Amino acid sequence: MSDCNAVLKALQPIFQEQGMTETVHNWEDHGYLVTYIKKNGSFANLRIHPHGLVLVDLQSYNDDMKGREEVDQLLNKVEERMKELFHGNIKRVKRLPAILRGGVIDRYWPTADGRLVEYDIDEVVYDEDSPFQNIKILHSKQFGNILILSGDVNLAESDLAYTQAIMGSGKEDYTGKEVLILGGGDGGSNIDQMVIDGCKKHMRKTCGDVLDNLKGECYQVLIEDCIPVLKRYAKEGRMFDYVINDLTAVPISTSPEEDSTWEFLRLILDLSMKVLKQDGKYFTQGNCINLTDALTLYEEQLSRLYCPVEFSKETVCVPSYMELWVFYTIWKKQTGI
Amino acid sequence: MSDCNAVLKALQPIFQEQGMTETVHNWEDHGYLVTYIKKNGSFANLRIHPHGLVLVDLQSYNDDMKGREEVDQLLNKVEERMKELFHGNIKRVKRLPAILRGGVIDRYWPTADGRLVEYDIDEVVYDEDSPFQNIKILHSKQFGNILILSGDVNLAESDLAYTQAIMGSGKEDYTGKEVLILGGGDGGSNIDQMVIDGCKKHMRKTCGDVLDNLKGECYQVLIEDCIPVLKRYAKEGRMFDYVINDLTAVPISTSPEEDSTWEFLRLILDLSMKVLKQDGKYFTQGNCINLTDALTLYEEQLSRLYCPVEFSKETVCVPSYMELWVFYTIWKKQTGI
Repeated sequence: MSDCNAVLKALQPIFQEQGMTETVHNWEDHGYLVTYIKKNGSFANLRIHPHGLVLVDLQSYNDDMKGREEVDQLLNKVEERMKELFHGNIKRVKRLPAILRGGVIDRYWPTADGRLVEYDIDEVVYDEDSPFQNIKILHSKQFGNILILSGDVNLAESDLAYTQAIMGSGKEDYTGKEVLILGGGDGGSNIDQMVIDGCKKHMRKTCGDVLDNLKGECYQVLIEDCIPVLKRYAKEGRMFDYVINDLTAVPISTSPEEDSTWEFLRLILDLSMKVLKQDGKYFTQGNCINLTDALTLYEEQLSRLYCPVEFSKETVCVPSYMELWVFYTIWKKQTGI
Repeated sequence: MSDCNAVLKALQPIFQEQGMTETVHNWEDHGYLVTYIKKNGSFANLRIHPHGLVLVDLQSYNDDMKGREEVDQLLNKVEERMKELFHGNIKRVKRLPAILRGGVIDRYWPTADGRLVEYDIDEVVYDEDSPFQNIKILHSKQFGNILILSGDVNLAESDLAYTQAIMGSGKEDYTGKEVLILGGGDGGSNIDQMVIDGCKKHMRKTCGDVLDNLKGECYQVLIEDCIPVLKRYAKEGRMFDYVINDLTAVPISTSPEEDSTWEFLRLILDLSMKVLKQDGKYFTQGNCINLTDALTLYEEQLSRLYCPVEFSKETVCVPSYMELWVFYTIWKKQTGI
């Protein structure tokens, strides 16, 4: 505790010089929290822990470059004073970039495995609520326009790697083949017309002119629930060489009460297998590589389909995801050979 | 201001229920800062801005899962109460993942363009100070071991894309060619023996067994300053088909007072061109794609070499970088043809 007090005494003048008003809380057994308040609405928290951790948080409104220089100068002083106090014997010094909150542009879109990542977003291109979800298209300096559905980064203009992976990584010859794509509202079919409207205007690098006309020489886009369509195809006996499942709803839950999500996923898989030719292939995205429990649960579903299947998986770096992503190839087990 | 007061009155009970001690600061024209202190050393800041922004920061020591659930419950209550107060008319609600500070493992390694990104680090594999720099090798769940030199992410085991890019993206045939690699301490030559020691033990997926013996059938690793070596080669008239510059020191400064860095870089480039065959190629990494000023300055240096050169560039996604990276190919301008 004498150390805590020494740190407090050493750092106090730095904040007081700034014309800040001080409020000290002393826990005795948990160190100090000192709050410094400036007249312009900004403030600082100085948290001194007894075991040697000192945290300084600064919060201000209307950040400008002048403000950043002031912050750097203040933190330089804190660092110098601490090094003097402990004769340079400091284990680690770390400054984190400022977190920008409350502005028009939100730069923080956590990864699927829950890590905080800041994107270089500089423009809100599209932001609408559809009956199904919130649809954002944000511009990233490096990734181009990014489609974000209810907070999940779906696809950016930089993400050709995603499209290549979900099409079989260049190993397939699609010439003359029948292909069924589920989902893919960023350039394919989707139940949410508003996703298509946003993408056809702002994600042309990914979807080209495919969404301008829902029917072309060799393709047709259906904007409806895929379940009845799959059931109809199955009943009609219509078969495909490839089924590509790019539906946005990925179950990442591993809790048993969300069984219905897994059942829904199995329903889609079963119906897809029914319309897939015996030597056909089913491609889909899985999840981020770190959600191993969710990936295992997904693979368990594959052993519970109406017909036996085999699968392979591939890990792909999709630029705008900031995490590695697992893609699956699934095919019907060849029997009696 | 009446809104500020209404928010304060609505949220107060939530924190008071937690047995927290309240300190209110009222700026009049800048809203409120309310500090809530718990007996166990944790605390909360509630910052209410007059224009409608409400920020809640919670800070605690020794975070456990129980603590996280409590935090979620508290934030759920804040969100509910705010929605009640404004009859659901709230523009945006955002929760950011917790920032973990002061632990053994540091998960925050900002990008070259200064963005805050959290890595999935779960182990400190190596952490030493050499006479030249701090050398860390940290284990990432998805990227494998990552080499971090003085805070800069250099290379991870996942980053084959980096090595491919700096070798010409698979378009070169190295059979029987003379190759000079500058830098590349993660698997090549470097002045810092300690980088080699760390990498040869912990980065074997990138360097293989190349660093176990500094001399092999077709290669030799020199651990010394590359300038005198380049000068000697130039004097001896030794020429290479390829020069690969993978030196860690990338000048990202754009301030004029750091001219000497650019001069050093030009010296290396000039010497490299002297030992490069007339039809040879020089590969190097540039910078992250967002640091456009630094990239432009680099390209300007290329027009100031002793011989005229041409260049092309390629943008590559290196998984562990979390930002796109620019690589250069430079060659001597063919004259008189």
